[in-house]
Amino acid sequence: MKISEEQLKSHNKKESEVHSRHFDEIAGRLDKNNLNIESLIQQLEQFQVTIPSWALGAGGTRFGRFSIGGEPATLGEKLDDVGLIHAMNRTSGAISLHIPWDIPDDMVAIREKADELDITFDAVNSNTFQDQKDQEYSYKYGSLCHTDKKIRVQAVEHNVQVIRYGEQLGSKAITVWLADGSNFPGQQNFRKAFERTRDSLEKIYLELPSDWKMLIEYKPYEPNFYSMVIPDWGTSFLLVSKLGDKAETLVDLGHHLPNTNIEQIVATLLLEHKLGGFHFNDSKYGDDDLTTGSVKPYQLFLIFNELVENIDHPDQPFSQIAWMIDASHNVKDPLEDLLQSVEAIQIAFARALLVDREQLEHARNANDVSLAQEVMQDAFRTDVRPLVAESRIRSGAAAHPLKLYRQLEVRKNLIKERGTETQATGL
Amino acid sequence: MKISEEQLKSHNKKESEVHSRHFDEIAGRLDKNNLNIESLIQQLEQFQVTIPSWALGAGGTRFGRFSIGGEPATLGEKLDDVGLIHAMNRTSGAISLHIPWDIPDDMVAIREKADELDITFDAVNSNTFQDQKDQEYSYKYGSLCHTDKKIRVQAVEHNVQVIRYGEQLGSKAITVWLADGSNFPGQQNFRKAFERTRDSLEKIYLELPSDWKMLIEYKPYEPNFYSMVIPDWGTSFLLVSKLGDKAETLVDLGHHLPNTNIEQIVATLLLEHKLGGFHFNDSKYGDDDLTTGSVKPYQLFLIFNELVENIDHPDQPFSQIAWMIDASHNVKDPLEDLLQSVEAIQIAFARALLVDREQLEHARNANDVSLAQEVMQDAFRTDVRPLVAESRIRSGAAAHPLKLYRQLEVRKNLIKERGTETQATGL
Amino acid sequence: MKISEEQLKSHNKKESEVHSRHFDEIAGRLDKNNLNIESLIQQLEQFQVTIPSWALGAGGTRFGRFSIGGEPATLGEKLDDVGLIHAMNRTSGAISLHIPWDIPDDMVAIREKADELDITFDAVNSNTFQDQKDQEYSYKYGSLCHTDKKIRVQAVEHNVQVIRYGEQLGSKAITVWLADGSNFPGQQNFRKAFERTRDSLEKIYLELPSDWKMLIEYKPYEPNFYSMVIPDWGTSFLLVSKLGDKAETLVDLGHHLPNTNIEQIVATLLLEHKLGGFHFNDSKYGDDDLTTGSVKPYQLFLIFNELVENIDHPDQPFSQIAWMIDASHNVKDPLEDLLQSVEAIQIAFARALLVDREQLEHARNANDVSLAQEVMQDAFRTDVRPLVAESRIRSGAAAHPLKLYRQLEVRKNLIKERGTETQATGL
Amino acid sequence: MKISEEQLKSHNKKESEVHSRHFDEIAGRLDKNNLNIESLIQQLEQFQVTIPSWALGAGGTRFGRFSIGGEPATLGEKLDDVGLIHAMNRTSGAISLHIPWDIPDDMVAIREKADELDITFDAVNSNTFQDQKDQEYSYKYGSLCHTDKKIRVQAVEHNVQVIRYGEQLGSKAITVWLADGSNFPGQQNFRKAFERTRDSLEKIYLELPSDWKMLIEYKPYEPNFYSMVIPDWGTSFLLVSKLGDKAETLVDLGHHLPNTNIEQIVATLLLEHKLGGFHFNDSKYGDDDLTTGSVKPYQLFLIFNELVENIDHPDQPFSQIAWMIDASHNVKDPLEDLLQSVEAIQIAFARALLVDREQLEHARNANDVSLAQEVMQDAFRTDVRPLVAESRIRSGAAAHPLKLYRQLEVRKNLIKERGTETQATGL
Repeated sequence: MKISEEQLKSHNKKESEVHSRHFDEIAGRLDKNNLNIESLIQQLEQFQVTIPSWALGAGGTRFGRFSIGGEPATLGEKLDDVGLIHAMNRTSGAISLHIPWDIPDDMVAIREKADELDITFDAVNSNTFQDQKDQEYSYKYGSLCHTDKKIRVQAVEHNVQVIRYGEQLGSKAITVWLADGSNFPGQQNFRKAFERTRDSLEKIYLELPSDWKMLIEYKPYEPNFYSMVIPDWGTSFLLVSKLGDKAETLVDLGHHLPNTNIEQIVATLLLEHKLGGFHFNDSKYGDDDLTTGSVKPYQLFLIFNELVENIDHPDQPFSQIAWMIDASHNVKDPLEDLLQSVEAIQIAFARALLVDREQLEHARNANDVSLAQEVMQDAFRTDVRPLVAESRIRSGAAAHPLKLYRQLEVRKNLIKERGTETQATGL
Repeated sequence: MKISEEQLKSHNKKESEVHSRHFDEIAGRLDKNNLNIESLIQQLEQFQVTIPSWALGAGGTRFGRFSIGGEPATLGEKLDDVGLIHAMNRTSGAISLHIPWDIPDDMVAIREKADELDITFDAVNSNTFQDQKDQEYSYKYGSLCHTDKKIRVQAVEHNVQVIRYGEQLGSKAITVWLADGSNFPGQQNFRKAFERTRDSLEKIYLELPSDWKMLIEYKPYEPNFYSMVIPDWGTSFLLVSKLGDKAETLVDLGHHLPNTNIEQIVATLLLEHKLGGFHFNDSKYGDDDLTTGSVKPYQLFLIFNELVENIDHPDQPFSQIAWMIDASHNVKDPLEDLLQSVEAIQIAFARALLVDREQLEHARNANDVSLAQEVMQDAFRTDVRPLVAESRIRSGAAAHPLKLYRQLEVRKNLIKERGTETQATGL
Repeated sequence: MKISEEQLKSHNKKESEVHSRHFDEIAGRLDKNNLNIESLIQQLEQFQVTIPSWALGAGGTRFGRFSIGGEPATLGEKLDDVGLIHAMNRTSGAISLHIPWDIPDDMVAIREKADELDITFDAVNSNTFQDQKDQEYSYKYGSLCHTDKKIRVQAVEHNVQVIRYGEQLGSKAITVWLADGSNFPGQQNFRKAFERTRDSLEKIYLELPSDWKMLIEYKPYEPNFYSMVIPDWGTSFLLVSKLGDKAETLVDLGHHLPNTNIEQIVATLLLEHKLGGFHFNDSKYGDDDLTTGSVKPYQLFLIFNELVENIDHPDQPFSQIAWMIDASHNVKDPLEDLLQSVEAIQIAFARALLVDREQLEHARNANDVSLAQEVMQDAFRTDVRPLVAESRIRSGAAAHPLKLYRQLEVRKNLIKERGTETQATGL
Repeated sequence: MKISEEQLKSHNKKESEVHSRHFDEIAGRLDKNNLNIESLIQQLEQFQVTIPSWALGAGGTRFGRFSIGGEPATLGEKLDDVGLIHAMNRTSGAISLHIPWDIPDDMVAIREKADELDITFDAVNSNTFQDQKDQEYSYKYGSLCHTDKKIRVQAVEHNVQVIRYGEQLGSKAITVWLADGSNFPGQQNFRKAFERTRDSLEKIYLELPSDWKMLIEYKPYEPNFYSMVIPDWGTSFLLVSKLGDKAETLVDLGHHLPNTNIEQIVATLLLEHKLGGFHFNDSKYGDDDLTTGSVKPYQLFLIFNELVENIDHPDQPFSQIAWMIDASHNVKDPLEDLLQSVEAIQIAFARALLVDREQLEHARNANDVSLAQEVMQDAFRTDVRPLVAESRIRSGAAAHPLKLYRQLEVRKNLIKERGTETQATGL
């Protein structure tokens, strides 16, 4: 299924009257605050959020998985799905692949399809947390950190292979998420495991093309439940510092202990020029992988507040941060969920752009705590949806993507095309 | 210091043009959704949030306390401060007293002053977590739960005395927050401590006037760090169920373990007709006692969503729930903080009133998860500040209380009147 | 594979000299404290911990699963595995089945095999968190709480069927763990979901045989990540109170929010005679399902301290509490893990039996906090392993089950018998 | 009050028979395992744990404080109290002072008293979280991070002054715990606050004597409840790395988010040679400052397991790590509490020394997870109290310090000497 320009125009035409009024209202109000609306909308237009290939089908928990119909069964169909999202919001023009799930059969055909859909390939992901059918050694007890050199070599080689695939696709980064860790006190020698991991990462780093980045995630627990080799930003930071300039830390919002101040971590990484990118999602308990902005929208805004504050920094350019979603869709249509996530991210970004930075810095310098809070809340309480919709309309996207998605009965069409039994690779 | 009607009018006049435009915009928009704006604004006008007497001065932590100037030194001055808040927002027409901190010297004079300021007396609070100078027995090892009967008797008598003061002031409820608990495994016999507490509460309950309520708080930790006698809603609920119809549970937003779903607790208590009231505040880690809505505004909205859903329930009337703030102001002017808290509560209430309940129930029944989320987010993302301002203006309050507070330099005036050395009783 | 009496005797003979010395040492020491060693060892001998059928194979996470070899492929083989454990420790003489995973093909044969292995059938478990192949309606959006009556009926009928199977096996309880809940704010009407669940449970309750119990679990999150219909002990308690005397709460150690004081919950449930049983395991983060006692051994001891304190209570007899393990074995041989769990539980029980209750109550009554701590730590710091080993030897079990398990190369034998490709049903 | 050698001898004589039997039993058992008991006991004898001057009186919470009698009112009396502890356990031969609470009036007299009591001066602590009476600028909004340079200068100068006092006392380290942070989103510019803090610390660092260390603590929250400038080990590590070789991280066990794997942090800091020292205590919820080992004894053992594993590392010598207690005694006699803490630390150390490292490394290398757990639990389940008592007896201390403390009625004597109204400076 494809969404035609005609369908988009028709949708926007119907929405235009109401939208224009709302947009004029908010634009008028913000104009009074000397805010440059045009520039703000341009920033929204340029901002792109990458879709993960592994989140286009139904997710699951260890307790079960409930299929939706019409899941993409091939890499081509995954691209089609991202193409659908991107056609509707013009903000999701990139896909992040997971190897070996997404190894292209026909590299040329895949690149052509991506071009056609106006989609690029963002960071490629390696997978050493599962065993593949024809794999020689098991990752049951770790991969890059394994006590057995043969297994480390296998894991390093897999990562190098992922880079090679990425090169062919035009990716510029590899994301390494390491499930390595231990389930019981005493199981692992923490220091040796760290050293072996560092050595393995160094071997992979040496294989990076010169214009590539290596993004290293951290996570405190799951799938290991006593320790993870890279449990927190500090450990990731330590590793990327040792590796070199091309290595940076990736922040997955769900990978933190309860009550962590994530926005402060973002600020520290920005300060040290080591913020490589994000995996956006939301959560109440752990790595819940819920729709971005669905549980803690203020936290998302505060993260973007740090990012916007640094937006013009020459050493850590905003445009070079990898903006990616990582989610699992257990009870929703994945495409609807992704549309909601992208919109929530745009809203957070728009609100952060509204923050009166001059007044905020004044309040901070004067230790006028109430005023600082007012400045933040003023931006957050503003209804920025018309701004986001305007940026979409100007980009040739739909005013209201989710509405259009339902009007066009996209899922129904996908089920008609693909049937109810397909299952996307992923978690 | 008093705020004159003239000052309020002058403020509102200056704000009126901008306000009217914003109000008309939002009213026009909501009108399209068949929402009854007038009714909504009336509900906002009627809604009152009680100010705690103990939060009118600077708070502190165990590490230190930093005075602000002009703190109220007497109960009369505390009433004056609440009067200031209420004059500006017409939403804070009640005070909650803490005995023995707030024992009136001259009952008649205090009641007259309260009448004059249009302030009523909400729930009175007992204090058995500190020793008073002339107290016979110490609460070091507990009060209502104490192993020594003499100390339990003393604590019961104190609570009865608090009820007696409350009766004279026109209160209709006593709030019991019990610091009782233990710091070390083994220190306390959990079951005996529970039984002694239940017995003590029964004795207090018998002394309740017929139209009174007893509100019982719960808290998982602090000031005891291993166990609290009433750690969670389940234990409070067990106690209020045993005590009788006049006993209900009070929910302090800060009294929960990490990641607790508070809105669900609110729903369960509503279902069982045992939701007595709230202590509003916000927190990131524990009982941080921060400004309501300053950290987790979406959670506050979700709590109000439960309350509004139940707003017409005959057995648990919305109007009989005690709406109170409980906060500690370590770095802000307490009056500014309280104005911000009340506004955040009003905003959450207004947003909850916007929720399209028909569509929400439809989505729930159809298990249309994306739609349910859209309905909630639509209400939350709406900028309801013009509605709240309108309700204030109609009530004779200020369009923007905090702005007026600063224009009138209230704190400066209070310092002039009271000096910099006064210290309010409280925490 | 079976373990012969000869093998056990031979093992114990080899261990006897060292064991006897250690046992005499500890017995001599405790004897000085006027402790009745014989009675203590009898209590250990009588104590039985049920093995869950679903934890006899390799567990997994949503990220992957790594097989071990020799997993039991049939219910018969699962009984064999429990038989192996029980032969070695004489403390695991019961199995808890999960329906439909464990529906017996041949009821008579299964009962005979169980008799032969000296194994009884403890609580049976229903499963409404997964869809089965031939199931009419999906549990994707809930089961007992579902908005659609047809699905609730199906789920009730499944539970009744589980009871029927249990009756034929000689079980005396059904355990209901409900995965029902929601992933997003707004998705579920909390109160209606609770009421529907209560109604469904009532229907199941009516089908309980007169000498049966219904054990209701609670869990704060997973597999739903915003709310669970029965999130905490308070909600479970509310439900079992409404249902009647045969309904009781089951405490799974992993089903709590961070920092929960579980031993206090146990105490409260004991006080209200609503403690139905346990699912033992251990965890650092969430429902990690690790080996019991492997992460927080002191907490396990404190839980047993509450149980022992109540051991002679006529209204909540110790012997009628269901002692069950619930765990997931991702990196260990499940049989080794279960042997370790049972031993850790026995050690906690033995230590709790050592607590000098007279002195403890004296310390509590006198608020001698340091002494109370000393009493607890004295019991916990004592090396009770010789007592536990002695109780095993007297029961005809192995002095050191895990040692014997390895000496006999049980896993190797199981793999020889069953191959490496079998996979046990379960999680 | 002083404890005489006679009293110690008399105590030990009474205990000797029972102790000798227990010691011989455990020594015999361990001897069989080829463990060098003599060496182990020597290590225990040499190990010293510093007492904090601020924990010798009753602590308090923000809700209240309950005095004990006989609190030390002067620095001299604090030394006397540490002297009492040290006389009884010969393991607490150092005190850590807090400036300005502990500024010596008479430096010579204080040093002489310390010599007499065989007490040295461990790390000195600065205090910029409270305002002192004659202080020019307030730390209400921060100290080393303050937006106002004048306040930063004042805070730097205070720290330098603390170093100067420390030099005169023979200290070799300054501990910097920074309460700086913010209570509300937006209040603080994270990056500027970090940079200002770094600059201030650099100024202090320059004033360090050549053989000194600067120990930098981290803490996620309290007394600030939104952010702390140094919230986690990663931030502390970043700062100490920038500062230089003399700067190291200090780990306070209570300064972590829920579920943090502290032992892994210890391992990482050891690996990077940046582990400066400890503040020992225990906690269930936050910075509860409870008796070390009273809540999570297994965690304490796991921490010592990391330390012992590294005990012979040339670049991060065990002997140069600062072993200090930091606690608050709200309901216990502080001296009893400290004796219990020290004993719990010794027990954890002794157990860690028992770990069969060869077998553990074998199990780790072979990924024999069950065996690794067995090795750890074997050490932890061993009753090492006779070893610790033996090390005390050989050092001239009491076999059972707490028992002796009570027999000698030390608190009663202190109250007789000092009265009931004294209050120690501290928290």
